[in-house]
Amino acid sequence: MQKPSLPKGTRDFGPLQMARRNYILNIIRSSFELFGYQQIETPTMENLSTLTGKYGDEGDQLIFKILNSGDFLKKVNEEDLREGSKHMLPKISEKGLRYDLTVPFARYVVMNRNEIAFPFKRYQIQPVWRADRPQRGRYREFYQCDADVVGTDSLICEAEIILLIRSVFAQLNLKNYSIKINNRKILTGISEVIGAAGQEGPLCVAIDKLDKIGWDKVQEELISRDFTAESLVKLEPIINLTGSISAKIEFLKEFLASSEAGLRGVSELEEVFGTLSQMGADLEHVDLDVVLARGLSYYTGAIFEVKVADVSVGSVSGGGRYDDLTGVFGLPDVSGVGFSFGVDRLYDVLEELDLFPEQTIESTKILLVHFDQKGYRYALGQVQKLRAAGIKAEVYPDSAKIKKQFDYASKKNIPFAGICGDNEIEAGTIALKNLLSGEQSVLALDQVIEALG
Amino acid sequence: MQKPSLPKGTRDFGPLQMARRNYILNIIRSSFELFGYQQIETPTMENLSTLTGKYGDEGDQLIFKILNSGDFLKKVNEEDLREGSKHMLPKISEKGLRYDLTVPFARYVVMNRNEIAFPFKRYQIQPVWRADRPQRGRYREFYQCDADVVGTDSLICEAEIILLIRSVFAQLNLKNYSIKINNRKILTGISEVIGAAGQEGPLCVAIDKLDKIGWDKVQEELISRDFTAESLVKLEPIINLTGSISAKIEFLKEFLASSEAGLRGVSELEEVFGTLSQMGADLEHVDLDVVLARGLSYYTGAIFEVKVADVSVGSVSGGGRYDDLTGVFGLPDVSGVGFSFGVDRLYDVLEELDLFPEQTIESTKILLVHFDQKGYRYALGQVQKLRAAGIKAEVYPDSAKIKKQFDYASKKNIPFAGICGDNEIEAGTIALKNLLSGEQSVLALDQVIEALG
Repeated sequence: MQKPSLPKGTRDFGPLQMARRNYILNIIRSSFELFGYQQIETPTMENLSTLTGKYGDEGDQLIFKILNSGDFLKKVNEEDLREGSKHMLPKISEKGLRYDLTVPFARYVVMNRNEIAFPFKRYQIQPVWRADRPQRGRYREFYQCDADVVGTDSLICEAEIILLIRSVFAQLNLKNYSIKINNRKILTGISEVIGAAGQEGPLCVAIDKLDKIGWDKVQEELISRDFTAESLVKLEPIINLTGSISAKIEFLKEFLASSEAGLRGVSELEEVFGTLSQMGADLEHVDLDVVLARGLSYYTGAIFEVKVADVSVGSVSGGGRYDDLTGVFGLPDVSGVGFSFGVDRLYDVLEELDLFPEQTIESTKILLVHFDQKGYRYALGQVQKLRAAGIKAEVYPDSAKIKKQFDYASKKNIPFAGICGDNEIEAGTIALKNLLSGEQSVLALDQVIEALG
Repeated sequence: MQKPSLPKGTRDFGPLQMARRNYILNIIRSSFELFGYQQIETPTMENLSTLTGKYGDEGDQLIFKILNSGDFLKKVNEEDLREGSKHMLPKISEKGLRYDLTVPFARYVVMNRNEIAFPFKRYQIQPVWRADRPQRGRYREFYQCDADVVGTDSLICEAEIILLIRSVFAQLNLKNYSIKINNRKILTGISEVIGAAGQEGPLCVAIDKLDKIGWDKVQEELISRDFTAESLVKLEPIINLTGSISAKIEFLKEFLASSEAGLRGVSELEEVFGTLSQMGADLEHVDLDVVLARGLSYYTGAIFEVKVADVSVGSVSGGGRYDDLTGVFGLPDVSGVGFSFGVDRLYDVLEELDLFPEQTIESTKILLVHFDQKGYRYALGQVQKLRAAGIKAEVYPDSAKIKKQFDYASKKNIPFAGICGDNEIEAGTIALKNLLSGEQSVLALDQVIEALG
């Protein structure tokens, strides 16, 4: 007799958690579709040749590998064993678990390029797996929720990402948040202007930590990476930049006057904002953050990040524009822009702010309860009529004390009981009891349907 | 530059396939919820100790195993290597991929028994993995879609399974199918009556093949398993049993008169049919099939199987009642009844019968097309108003020939184009073109909303 357990870093989702996750995901899904994104799914397993070399050395080690089936030692000898795990791996494993949704998407685009309607707006909501050390809030299996448009460099995509995020957050009743936006070309421009041309890589990595470690430590890091004291002095106004979006843009135009790339970044931002305005939308919740870098070197245009105020979690959404999604699989020049929602984090945010509506619990609306066989048979006669009217309904399936039946309703968050006693049977009615307020009234079936419908 | 590929036995699902799968799954999901089933999800990875020993020796070999992360050879020496794969496995792998939804559900019930509201009606829709030899229609990754009620032996559960299947099939517009039902106790009774008491195991295995190999071959198999010629003669009326459900029941009552178990099976069936009748439902599509066995020895009561007529695939749904779901994990006496829909097979059936509604393609409803920058800007002004009215709408994002824009709409199955030309801009209208019929009319925006809403 074994006591069962879960692999570390993994979770079950019970009915309440599923209902809440579905509440979030249904809002995201319907918003994606309103904007013309189409769903795809890719397999859990990918060939290791598809996955490795895409996430850096550390990433490669965090990929879960699947042992070849059958006699996996077939091709292995003692020499291999002495060479160690790294040497042995390709001899006993050919497949790994999906590590993110981007690489499988790139593979999908390449393999289906002739069927795809470009520009291709796709979304994908699936779990990914990472052999990371599990921590509070960090799991080995977690959902990602990505949307990308590939095959166009139109800046309407960036504008629509802002609209999409606002649409989702409005439906989730999240009010206090900011959508930070920047442009990689502005970061390039800044590095040129401060006399560190070509150094935007380390510059991004360092200023990405500004929030966490502060300007002093960022300066230390930059100096250790051969940035001059003079360049840091020049950088300082950027670090301290505040004010309205239009004020920041005016500042940048002057600051970046000598950098072609930088000015292009500014004008791309202006076009995004102009597109929003042509779409009848304002800049509410939008914040131009010229030090936003997200540490990801493959962004080439816009960079996004969304933070919710007054909560302990970090960013809940982010993304950006890239030039070359599929080059590694032999299809160059597929550019696009993508972003993703952190579903686990959104869940934590809604929980922390108590924003889950009570009715997310896609539960049964009414439990028909009964005192005896006669009542049970009467309930059987009613329950299908309720369901035919679209009302989620159950009959308590066993003969049991009425208290036990109410306990079941309460544990399952069922808001109403329909009591089928002798009086109700005789009159052809149901005693409808609101299990929260205790209120009770005797109604005909169509009145029950009206009350719950 | 690598040419990417998929691991054998796995599939991508593109937008059309996803829309069709979601069409099926949404119907199943909402029906489950109408009947009070609640969704759970369990992790993709389970400890091998949870999985192994539950599916037989062959099953154990078909479980995909995950290589321990980090230096997986840490505990391995040359002696282990000489012992071979089977000996090596537990030293380098502790986790496997979910093989079905039943074992993880049993584990879930045991681990959460104190929080669960029993009787627990749960459903679960997730992929499972089997290292089977891939074939046409058989994949290494496929979805299962299970519903179970555990913690009650009330026969309302069996009746509701019949109602649920009919509700799902009615919504899928499947008209020609039969829900075969039997009871394991009837099979027990038959083996007693024909003088082969206790032999219902091999009896079930053999007559399960009746459809495929015919009565002659089944007799051969039974004789090879020590059934007597006399018992086969006694069995023959069962094999040839036809007629209405009530006629079959009358026959069984007589045939099984000497078997207590057999008569109990018959009376359980009668109670299921009686419950249906009390719920106001008839026996349409229901067929009592006394040789239905499904080869699964763990069923103890009702057995179900659903077959669609006029299609090449086999059964699309099946299940039954069992006595002991969780005993292997230390919680005895949890009985229940469960069934599952074969999503891949339902997909194939709907495709074969051409039953997917055109509008399953949860696609954009209208694409705004434009001839120049002025038209593009005009379209930008309209698209958010359409979306605000709940209409899935897109603007073609680039400057492009009108033909290219229409091609995009056609490839993406978008049914309407909204043409934004000079005349429309001047009049503040949209030329709404039905891309299937070619019909076109110039409308104000709220007329477009009304036409598409």
